[in-house]
Amino acid sequence: MSAARVVVSVPDEEYAAALADVEGVDVVVWDMEGPHERGSEVRLAVMPYMTRLTVSDVSDGLDALEAVQIQSAGFEGFLDGLPPGVVLCNAGGVHDASTAELALTLTLASIRQIPDFVAAQHDSKWLPLTLHPALADRRVLVLGYGNIGRAVARRLLPFEVSVTAVASRAREGDDLVESVHGIDELPELASAADVLIVIVPLTEATRGLVDATLLARLPDGALVVNVARGPVVDTDALVAECATGRLRAALDVTDPEPLPEDHPLWTTAGVLITPHVGGATEAMRPRAQDLIRRQVIALRDGQPLLHVVATG
Amino acid sequence: MSAARVVVSVPDEEYAAALADVEGVDVVVWDMEGPHERGSEVRLAVMPYMTRLTVSDVSDGLDALEAVQIQSAGFEGFLDGLPPGVVLCNAGGVHDASTAELALTLTLASIRQIPDFVAAQHDSKWLPLTLHPALADRRVLVLGYGNIGRAVARRLLPFEVSVTAVASRAREGDDLVESVHGIDELPELASAADVLIVIVPLTEATRGLVDATLLARLPDGALVVNVARGPVVDTDALVAECATGRLRAALDVTDPEPLPEDHPLWTTAGVLITPHVGGATEAMRPRAQDLIRRQVIALRDGQPLLHVVATG
Repeated sequence: MSAARVVVSVPDEEYAAALADVEGVDVVVWDMEGPHERGSEVRLAVMPYMTRLTVSDVSDGLDALEAVQIQSAGFEGFLDGLPPGVVLCNAGGVHDASTAELALTLTLASIRQIPDFVAAQHDSKWLPLTLHPALADRRVLVLGYGNIGRAVARRLLPFEVSVTAVASRAREGDDLVESVHGIDELPELASAADVLIVIVPLTEATRGLVDATLLARLPDGALVVNVARGPVVDTDALVAECATGRLRAALDVTDPEPLPEDHPLWTTAGVLITPHVGGATEAMRPRAQDLIRRQVIALRDGQPLLHVVATG
Repeated sequence: MSAARVVVSVPDEEYAAALADVEGVDVVVWDMEGPHERGSEVRLAVMPYMTRLTVSDVSDGLDALEAVQIQSAGFEGFLDGLPPGVVLCNAGGVHDASTAELALTLTLASIRQIPDFVAAQHDSKWLPLTLHPALADRRVLVLGYGNIGRAVARRLLPFEVSVTAVASRAREGDDLVESVHGIDELPELASAADVLIVIVPLTEATRGLVDATLLARLPDGALVVNVARGPVVDTDALVAECATGRLRAALDVTDPEPLPEDHPLWTTAGVLITPHVGGATEAMRPRAQDLIRRQVIALRDGQPLLHVVATG
């Protein structure tokens, strides 16, 4: 066979090394910060992680480009400028473990009062015994039930909680939940949620989804956990509800982001903030390598690519 | 039937209310801080939670006493002075959910760097993006595989970790682990543990079990989580290993306890401390009520009591 070899670009040597044994594929290392001499041959381009580049910044002269593989689950920043016919693939599965793990970390740290104990430790103070809250027996509403939502549910279930899942459309359940509720049921479900974990993609339909009206439906003392994207939640409304002590929040994403030093969210009572570290862990690399490998082999073999989220 | 009614004492009205519908039983509320007029009739006495009272402090004149029910899992403080023939029952199962939940909370909060983010939040600082550690893919060694150890393993498994269990004797596994290793394998297993979660009872065999030699076997960067009892771990040795940055620790129990204000553990790098709150949560009450109810019914019906841990 004399078929042309498949040329793919990856953003660093480590990814290239992980593909070294894939036959019939030329892997070029390209960080996309400037042109690459083999750019016109590249059929699949893997974007750097957490890049500020957009597809249109880098697509000039990529005449063979068929697919762009991004390294985040959220793809809202990559839709503009996607060349006609080029598909966009998100990092489906790559961040599930890490992001779901952070959702549980934020939930548990907030409910089990880790920030209070960190402050007490800073003062070398052993706090007196009182009965503290626990996650056990709580009703948890998982808003967004894609791969990460399911990974969150899987990690929640052994904690002796009830888990309810909501997605854009109602559908049958799986091995974790009896059924998946439709978004139209969200207001009613919110009124019975002790914990609301937000993990929907940011789209025009989800922007501001968790607004003042929805927050008002949550029971007193409920916890809002956002590991999705900041603009899914109305920040001002959340600050208002937490400032009175009625709600609590644990947020890996904020609006705006990074959160400016003078933003009230930093100092609002009952709010725990992590700086968008949901997916950015050592768990990412092996999972990203595995996905890129499967994509490259699919492209080489003329099979459908995985996790196609848009077509230019 | 004219059989004598069974008299049991409980430490507060809420427990009494939860037993109100159990037939054939007289429930008296007794906090055990002084004598009770029906003390001589009490066959089962439920001790207050986190009490400093011992059985011998309160057993004078309890001529009908058959059983003492304590509300903690650890029973090391209740063995002395148990009257002849009286059985001691620990709170088996009552704290499993809450304590296992805290073990996960401490593990996740430490690995996902919540104390660092709490400090950054205090300064209104959004930390720059770096790849952080994750729990996923870690090798976790659960030291102590009773009810709470199993509850820990159950909560750990969905996090895409490997879980190894060690108990006093090797035995077959269960639905969670393939096998339970014996304590003789502990030194070897420690050398392959990224996270060591300690949840053994405090006995003469476990006092100082996690000593300098065992700590030295843990790989660089390993995390020690103690939700058992402080004296199971050699505190000085742990401080020394954390002070160099070689190990990290997340401790709900310390030695001594409460930890004095001038103790070096408070300020040692990489150490997270919670003030013995593992079992002390709102998850406890319904589970304790359920256990006491089952014990009272067993006593009334002449059935064996549950969770008998010692006989006087």
